[in-house]
This record gives sequence, C-alpha cells and structure tokens, in this order.
Amino acid sequence: MSQKKAVVLLSGGIDSATTLAIAIDMGFTPYVMTFRYGQRHLVEVEAAEKVTKSLGVKDSICVDIDLGSFGGSALTDAIDVPKDRNEDVAADEIPITYVPARNTIFLSYALGWAEVLKAYDIFIGVTAVDYSGYPDCRPEFIEAFQSMANLATKEGVEGRPFTIHTPLITLTKSEIISKGNALNLDYALTHSCYDPSETGLACGHCDSCIHRIKGFAEVGIPDPTKYI
Amino acid sequence: MSQKKAVVLLSGGIDSATTLAIAIDMGFTPYVMTFRYGQRHLVEVEAAEKVTKSLGVKDSICVDIDLGSFGGSALTDAIDVPKDRNEDVAADEIPITYVPARNTIFLSYALGWAEVLKAYDIFIGVTAVDYSGYPDCRPEFIEAFQSMANLATKEGVEGRPFTIHTPLITLTKSEIISKGNALNLDYALTHSCYDPSETGLACGHCDSCIHRIKGFAEVGIPDPTKYI
Repeated sequence: MSQKKAVVLLSGGIDSATTLAIAIDMGFTPYVMTFRYGQRHLVEVEAAEKVTKSLGVKDSICVDIDLGSFGGSALTDAIDVPKDRNEDVAADEIPITYVPARNTIFLSYALGWAEVLKAYDIFIGVTAVDYSGYPDCRPEFIEAFQSMANLATKEGVEGRPFTIHTPLITLTKSEIISKGNALNLDYALTHSCYDPSETGLACGHCDSCIHRIKGFAEVGIPDPTKYI
Repeated sequence: MSQKKAVVLLSGGIDSATTLAIAIDMGFTPYVMTFRYGQRHLVEVEAAEKVTKSLGVKDSICVDIDLGSFGGSALTDAIDVPKDRNEDVAADEIPITYVPARNTIFLSYALGWAEVLKAYDIFIGVTAVDYSGYPDCRPEFIEAFQSMANLATKEGVEGRPFTIHTPLITLTKSEIISKGNALNLDYALTHSCYDPSETGLACGHCDSCIHRIKGFAEVGIPDPTKYI
C-alpha cells in the first residue's frame, strides 16, 4: 500500500517531535523539514536530527535561513532571554523571544517543498495552550495560512488543496507529553531551552523550560532534561 | 518631515524596478529586499543592485535562500526554460518556470523584516495582466496573504496592520513601462530573461523576454536590452 506523504516541520522540541510521532502514527510517510535560522542554540537542530533518526525517518532536509539578518528577537539577536516570568503576566504579552514572521516563513518553505513532493498534508506542532503567547501559534493564523496556501500554489488552484495539520493545537503541555509517551517517543532526545549553556544544559528558567518542567510534573513522569 | 518606511521586494526585472520607483514617488523611504534563491541567472541579482544604486536607496539587504534545495522549477533546476510559447496556450496553463511558493516565501521574509523595522507597507511588483499565469501573482492571493500577515504578527495582532501594495496589478506591460519612463527609471539597468547567455545577454524567446519586447514595442520606445 502506498502511503500518503506529509511534510512535517521539526524543531527538536517536545511539540514538534510529538507532532512527527503523531503523523507517523496516522500512517503518513514523513518528509521532515528543519531550519537553521540563526538560532543562538544549535543544540536544537542537533536534537531534531536525533529525533528524526530515532523515528526512522528516511527523507529530511535542513534549510539554512538567516532570520538573524533582520534581527528583532531574543532568539536570534544579542538580547537577553527573559527568565522566571510570572505566568499571569506572561499570558498577556507577546514576549521578546517572539521571532517576527517565523512560523509564516517556516510554513511557506514547507508549502514549497510539499508542492514539489505532491504532498498535500503539512504538519506543524503549534499549540495555543501552555504556549508563549506567539500570534503565529493560534488557530486563526493557521486557517488563514491554509486559505492563502491554496490560492498561492499551482496544486491548490488546480483543485488539489493543502491541509495544515496542527494535532497539538488544543492540548496542554502535559497532554502532549502523555500523547508522545503513548507513542514511545523518547523525550530525552528533545530540547526545549531558549538559553542553554555552552555544553547544552537547559537553563530551567526561560518560558520554554518552565512549560516543560510543569508539563512533566503534571504527567507525573521524570523530565529527562539535564538542567544547569 | 519623517517619511514612512516601506519594504520593497526587488528582483531586478521591469516590474519590481517600476514598483520601487513608484514607492519612492509615493513618498516612502524604501527598504529594499532582494533574494539569491538558487536562480540559474545571477545577472538578475546584479540588475537589482544597479537599480537600487541608481534610485539612491540607502537600506537594502540581499537574503540567501535555497529554493533549489527542493527543486521543482525550470528557474531553479536543470529543466529547460520553454521558448516561443504560443500566447493563447500560455494564458491557460501554469508554466514550468513557476517556482513553488516563491512569492509566499518572499512576502514572508518581507513581513519579518517589516515587523522589525516597524514598516507597515510592503510593495511587490506582481501583475495579473501580461504575466506568466503564476497563481501567486493574482489579487486574491495578495489579499489572502495580507489577512494572514495581520494574524501572524505581533504588530498586526496589536492593531498596527500591514498593507501589501501591488501598484502594477492591473497594468499591462506597456503601461508599466510608460509609468517607469515617466518616473525616469532607467530600464537599461533591469533584466528580464529567464535564460540568459553566460555573458548576460537575453534569449529573446522565453515568456519573460516576449512580454518585455512586446511591452516596449507597444509603448513605442526602444528596448535597451541586449539580446543574443
């Protein structure tokens, strides 16, 4: 039986790794796309490679893009990553770790590759729960991107539309971890920290570490991450 | 008086060069964004640099992106560029020179830079008349991109929306050339050919050359292009 192809965006964090495991579980043949985007922490890209290998993915590409060339984010610039943010405050503001148009650019590349592959399914691990308040993680953004994608492309215009899958969008971090656990995903391979040490240890205090620690605690299983 | 900033996408062809001249004429301070996207003809990027310089643009960036890494187009792959296509046939099909998701990727980068600059105006020289039938040159695509952009970004979500300007979208090639001429744009600096010779001479037979030659003939002014 020939399987359906899907392009899966993978950063190397919990969410995208779980999304990849879900796409495989749904029966898709995954084409994994990772980005080197001038992150301050390339340990994220290495995590993506480990996850790709452990899940037996055959086709993957790592695209070099230079978001750092126009700056504007603590994740690509020499701006301090905020630590120990109060959760109530955090929910109300878009933090400095927001990278302008990041998911738009990532999904645009995924769309280009998907069209070449004739893969009509694209997976992205965004979640609008337990997240960092980024506008490009919300369902209304994803719907707008999908509509745009089907007007932008030869395949879309000719009646073979693309679907953007966001299997995590309504899940909490602990629900995501439970799901991945059920699919035997090894979270020791993933990386979450926005501001790791030079040897790759997680800081334990950025938004991303806080969400991860809280998620594992809620599920009641040990977080395999090595913290400073 | 402080001028409004605008990000202007410039390829080095007639359309984008005219768009840049129009943005300047409208009083915007242009931030010019050009791409090296694995084109077979880097002469296009050189043309963009010449146009940028001749119009006195102060801020410009050239972003390296590797659309060639996933292929699928005669403009980025080792596929022959079609020559002397019949115009009636040409109008009905999307040609092999179509680059998957190209304008989506270009506009996504422009959006990212615009958000960093706090420039709420983005210019792109697409035209839905005398064009090559690309889906991502149509007004419905541009409208969908703008809606998506204002859901994707911090600025958009916080009530400072972006506008995608397409000043050429209803103009024929000859109207575009007339407009640029009126703005003293030097078309000798621009480049159109999809398949130039190694020394940068235009082929005269691809869709892009055909539109250019026809446009200049209709305006009744000499085409400064050097053809093979």
